[in-house]
Amino acid sequence: MNTIKGKVTLLSAGPGDIDLLTLRAAKALASADILLLDDLANADIVTLAPHARVIRVGKRGGCKSTPQAFIQRLMQRYAKKGLHVVRVKGGDALLFGRAGEEIAALREAHVPVDIVNGVSSGFAAAAGLGISLTHRDHCQGVTFVTAHMQDHSQPDWAALAATGTTLAIYMGMSRIASLTASLMDTLPSNTPAAVVQNAGSPQEKRLATTLGRLADEAVAAGLGSPAVILVGGAIGEAAEFAARAASAKGFAHAA
Amino acid sequence: MNTIKGKVTLLSAGPGDIDLLTLRAAKALASADILLLDDLANADIVTLAPHARVIRVGKRGGCKSTPQAFIQRLMQRYAKKGLHVVRVKGGDALLFGRAGEEIAALREAHVPVDIVNGVSSGFAAAAGLGISLTHRDHCQGVTFVTAHMQDHSQPDWAALAATGTTLAIYMGMSRIASLTASLMDTLPSNTPAAVVQNAGSPQEKRLATTLGRLADEAVAAGLGSPAVILVGGAIGEAAEFAARAASAKGFAHAA
Repeated sequence: MNTIKGKVTLLSAGPGDIDLLTLRAAKALASADILLLDDLANADIVTLAPHARVIRVGKRGGCKSTPQAFIQRLMQRYAKKGLHVVRVKGGDALLFGRAGEEIAALREAHVPVDIVNGVSSGFAAAAGLGISLTHRDHCQGVTFVTAHMQDHSQPDWAALAATGTTLAIYMGMSRIASLTASLMDTLPSNTPAAVVQNAGSPQEKRLATTLGRLADEAVAAGLGSPAVILVGGAIGEAAEFAARAASAKGFAHAA
Repeated sequence: MNTIKGKVTLLSAGPGDIDLLTLRAAKALASADILLLDDLANADIVTLAPHARVIRVGKRGGCKSTPQAFIQRLMQRYAKKGLHVVRVKGGDALLFGRAGEEIAALREAHVPVDIVNGVSSGFAAAAGLGISLTHRDHCQGVTFVTAHMQDHSQPDWAALAATGTTLAIYMGMSRIASLTASLMDTLPSNTPAAVVQNAGSPQEKRLATTLGRLADEAVAAGLGSPAVILVGGAIGEAAEFAARAASAKGFAHAA
């Protein structure tokens, strides 16, 4: 029997702009007693949680960070005191956020957990480019994959490319040259590809080009993390891609 | 030069509950002059658009529906009159919604288009099951795929299964027996699998079992469209799955 009066809400903060939060997320924030805030979430989110004590628990890949076990203990301790703990995560909490481990530990400790969905940055990246992730002339789906694996190995890029789905690659900027090279073992170098940095925020930057040029052009444009790399025929619908292709064609013609 | 004063907002209504709309979506609805409403969107959404004339343009797969060309003409006509047209789509507009074709046609007609992201039903399904789509002990990603292809062919289930990602299959209920059979050419029959019908709405129904039992049990439970089929190791983290596995084990032991 559950005697814990408090609870934990795993709350998806979306890709950046506060107004990409859901109405449900705004309600949960309004009733929060404790706010555990991720690095990737917009810091302005605290304005929606006027009664909450704010604790910052960023864990950006590779940087100094709050250990996961400590975050777990914090959530459980405050929930057991009867408080409403809101654990804020960037994007959607159920994609690449270690929510799986947090839910399992909370369930083990008999702490009630609510999950509030949100907009993942891959969707915001597509909106920025003005494209569908799954234009049906090009593909039948989209694969969200992280390039940053638990055991530091590489995803099976050949298998991913073989699906014919649009690829939305998260946490790939530090290895963009090697991953685009791996994808080109299977996909043609003229496959449309893009990088969207800070998707869905006022700082959003976009680059739409081809898989063969993506790594060099992203470096030249100074693009870095956090960013989503998009690869596949559907990306070719982006207006930027069309403009670039036209201009490249014009240049080749003139040369 | 763009002389069209109106615009079209492609608005993601999320999986069902009104409070899974984003704050941005609520703002766009409040300023809508014309609301084009999809079958899959919650009809209560009209309460957020008090000034809008509502036009219903459902196109549920296989049923009688408003032709796409007519919807396109409606959007363009009203936008050219200087009105704010809000085209509401279930889930996220950029996943399986034919947004690609609509954006292309609007761009061709020089009609400004805004895109407002939302929560796709695959994320809501995972929230209902209380799981991450990408628990890092199990996988490095998730593939959203439609079983309902433009040319009525089947997706390449072997290639999709070979990625090792969680599969979130949309529009698959009418062929659940054949698609689970195809997946079992590659995946073991005890791979965790689930169906979530009406994910993220008060009518949500869930079934968590194994790939080998999924089709029979879904039929026995009377589950139908709209639903998301989830397949992969990460689904085994669902409490329902754990409870079932424990009970099945108990049963086998007692027998």
